[in-house]
Amino acid sequence: MLEIEIKVRVPDLQPIRERIRSSGAALLGEGVEYDAYYNSPERDFASTDEALRLRKADDYALLTYKGPKIGSGSFKAREELNIRVESLDTMDMLLQRIGFQKTAHVKKYRESYRIGQATVTLDTVENLGTFAEIEAAAELSQEEAELEIEKIAKEYGISGERLTLSYLELLLEE
Amino acid sequence: MLEIEIKVRVPDLQPIRERIRSSGAALLGEGVEYDAYYNSPERDFASTDEALRLRKADDYALLTYKGPKIGSGSFKAREELNIRVESLDTMDMLLQRIGFQKTAHVKKYRESYRIGQATVTLDTVENLGTFAEIEAAAELSQEEAELEIEKIAKEYGISGERLTLSYLELLLEE
Repeated sequence: MLEIEIKVRVPDLQPIRERIRSSGAALLGEGVEYDAYYNSPERDFASTDEALRLRKADDYALLTYKGPKIGSGSFKAREELNIRVESLDTMDMLLQRIGFQKTAHVKKYRESYRIGQATVTLDTVENLGTFAEIEAAAELSQEEAELEIEKIAKEYGISGERLTLSYLELLLEE
Repeated sequence: MLEIEIKVRVPDLQPIRERIRSSGAALLGEGVEYDAYYNSPERDFASTDEALRLRKADDYALLTYKGPKIGSGSFKAREELNIRVESLDTMDMLLQRIGFQKTAHVKKYRESYRIGQATVTLDTVENLGTFAEIEAAAELSQEEAELEIEKIAKEYGISGERLTLSYLELLLEE
């Protein structure tokens, strides 16, 4: 699956949240997400622009691989593989046994909405700030995805600095 | 979890199966298991005596790490980490993306029974033969585990060559 999205640093999530809620958009989920990132013993994922992440959400654990970013401009596209796993703690141990080291953590409060052919997430990231992300549905072409994203950004007032760095990269930069 | 077990090459599973069934032991499961083994890009798991395995069973997918064998004599003990995963195909792709290579396959028909404080499995392994395994419950001490295993081996006629090699190692030896 190729993920096409924008991430926007916003000063305040509340006006965006209000517009979304008054539009009647479906809340897909909300809660605290705690992400641990791992580095490979064989190559440095920070250099190869890859990421291996284990996420603890309220009611599930998710292992994710992200390939190098291939986006242009303010859009970001990258391969993303997601697998729900039964046990976070056992998966963490297994990754360490096969040589992967935990390098960083990101903790955030996230709420996600289904809007049009996209998912909009409002994030409050610990030690980093507030962000809105718009991710196009995987079945759209790149052109359709970018149009849908711009339409939603305009409609819900999601404007500000667009970032192609991940939260992990932003935190490591600070 | 430390797994303590014996693996016995048996000429015929049928007499063992009959004794088990007439004892009223509970069948835990049966079906075809298809195992893929992966090697690390950083170290050779055949040399370090580790294993990373992705199993496809009838109704679930299981990722397993096995640490180096630390058993003595005909008993085998090793650390084993098991995690059920949502998608076999995505997990296979993820392992390959993070540098692991699929090196071998093992296909077998397995039936498992709960007997006393152990699990007995009867395996018909493709290209290899028929085997019975007795694995003690994880909560037993090593001494209790070995006593329980010997008791069951005697009671159900599980006798023959005891092997400490895995099916993978036996297949690679052939």
